Amino acid sequence: MTEPLVSYVLGLADDALVSAQRMGWWISRAPQLEEDVALANIGLDQLGQARALLAYAGVVEGAGRSEDDLAYLRDERDFRNVWLVERAQADFGVAMARLLVFAAWQSELYAALARSTDATLSGVAGKAVKEVAYHLDHARHWVVRLGDGTDESHARMQAALEAEWPYVEELFGPVDAGLVAAGVAVDPAGLRPAVLAVVEDVLAEATLVVPQVRPATGGGRAGLHTEEMGYLLAEMQHLHRSHPGATW
Amino acid sequence: MTEPLVSYVLGLADDALVSAQRMGWWISRAPQLEEDVALANIGLDQLGQARALLAYAGVVEGAGRSEDDLAYLRDERDFRNVWLVERAQADFGVAMARLLVFAAWQSELYAALARSTDATLSGVAGKAVKEVAYHLDHARHWVVRLGDGTDESHARMQAALEAEWPYVEELFGPVDAGLVAAGVAVDPAGLRPAVLAVVEDVLAEATLVVPQVRPATGGGRAGLHTEEMGYLLAEMQHLHRSHPGATW
Repeated sequence: MTEPLVSYVLGLADDALVSAQRMGWWISRAPQLEEDVALANIGLDQLGQARALLAYAGVVEGAGRSEDDLAYLRDERDFRNVWLVERAQADFGVAMARLLVFAAWQSELYAALARSTDATLSGVAGKAVKEVAYHLDHARHWVVRLGDGTDESHARMQAALEAEWPYVEELFGPVDAGLVAAGVAVDPAGLRPAVLAVVEDVLAEATLVVPQVRPATGGGRAGLHTEEMGYLLAEMQHLHRSHPGATW
Repeated sequence: MTEPLVSYVLGLADDALVSAQRMGWWISRAPQLEEDVALANIGLDQLGQARALLAYAGVVEGAGRSEDDLAYLRDERDFRNVWLVERAQADFGVAMARLLVFAAWQSELYAALARSTDATLSGVAGKAVKEVAYHLDHARHWVVRLGDGTDESHARMQAALEAEWPYVEELFGPVDAGLVAAGVAVDPAGLRPAVLAVVEDVLAEATLVVPQVRPATGGGRAGLHTEEMGYLLAEMQHLHRSHPGATW
């Protein structure tokens, strides 16, 4: 059960790691100083989750790879994150629509995973669930404020939501059945009703409508990524790879 | 004494604000995940100092400007930060050399300012001095590790130091004499021996030599800035200015 577990843990780790990178882009670019601080802290929470999960994936794998090895020395095809988190998010509405969906999903996931039969996953999830509740609240605040705001902010928030919605379905894609049966992993399909209920409640309060769009192909869990993933990895990995094995 | 005090507080606020922006660039680009987290936290500390100081400058000024107004709606000539902090720092050695100098200076400055006769400045400085001690320690660790490392890391660290050194002198430029006499402001010239002693101790431990270079012109305290400042402000202010007075 080692390989499926490594893949499963890497999936969750990479979702958090890649999301943290995209969140970091906003630092120095948010519309308020307070928002700079908030987005930085959300990114740091996600990075903390990623580090714990990457370290654990390295242990399970048993090949001596550290969290840094896994973050910086894997190639694009070895990353397991969903497409939702990897695309650029230079529009603030897009960033908040994406965070709403991602945090709603992580909330339900981590709450369920806190009861995992795997003690490490249970521990990481139990800590993360409190962090993610704050992220969800933050996204909810902005989506309602922008959706139920001016005509322009409403139109832009709806457009942001339409842009992100094709990537929602991939969050509920299947994981290894053996891990689910053993109570180690959470079946993502089982999270769908609760996640969508949370998101749709926020959209209703924000006077936004649930997009009617076809799901994107996805494939992140199998190592297939969008073009933008390559640029993200180039930026993230450049410095570390420029000095392979540096002991400084 | 209102105008000199506003200028003085804005100078310290803008040093911290601009440094935080440059630190934020490193998030997602540092050589280790742990370093990503460390640099993000340093940037957040600086941003916290900037917010407190900007808010106070707005109060002293008495024109109803908030911290966000001061951060996002001033033009380049109204920024009072030194040149040390405003130039791009896309080289990790440069980032650490600069942080060493800046944190050593802020340490001495805030320690002295904690005894200011101005209760607000005293309070902000008293809190910041603990944060800055950590920044200094972090920079010291890297400068020693890189300086006293491989031949290549030593050469690059020395080059980074040479690049930053012309900007050291501006930190000790004069401030309003009336504010100093009243015990409100700290005379920067008085900080020079202690700051240089701290930095030179680190350089000695790092087997680096103190650069012999001519000081740069400077002029940041008077609103004169390098070309790179314009790009930094464009990025920082773009979103806020795109929606003037937005109430969302």
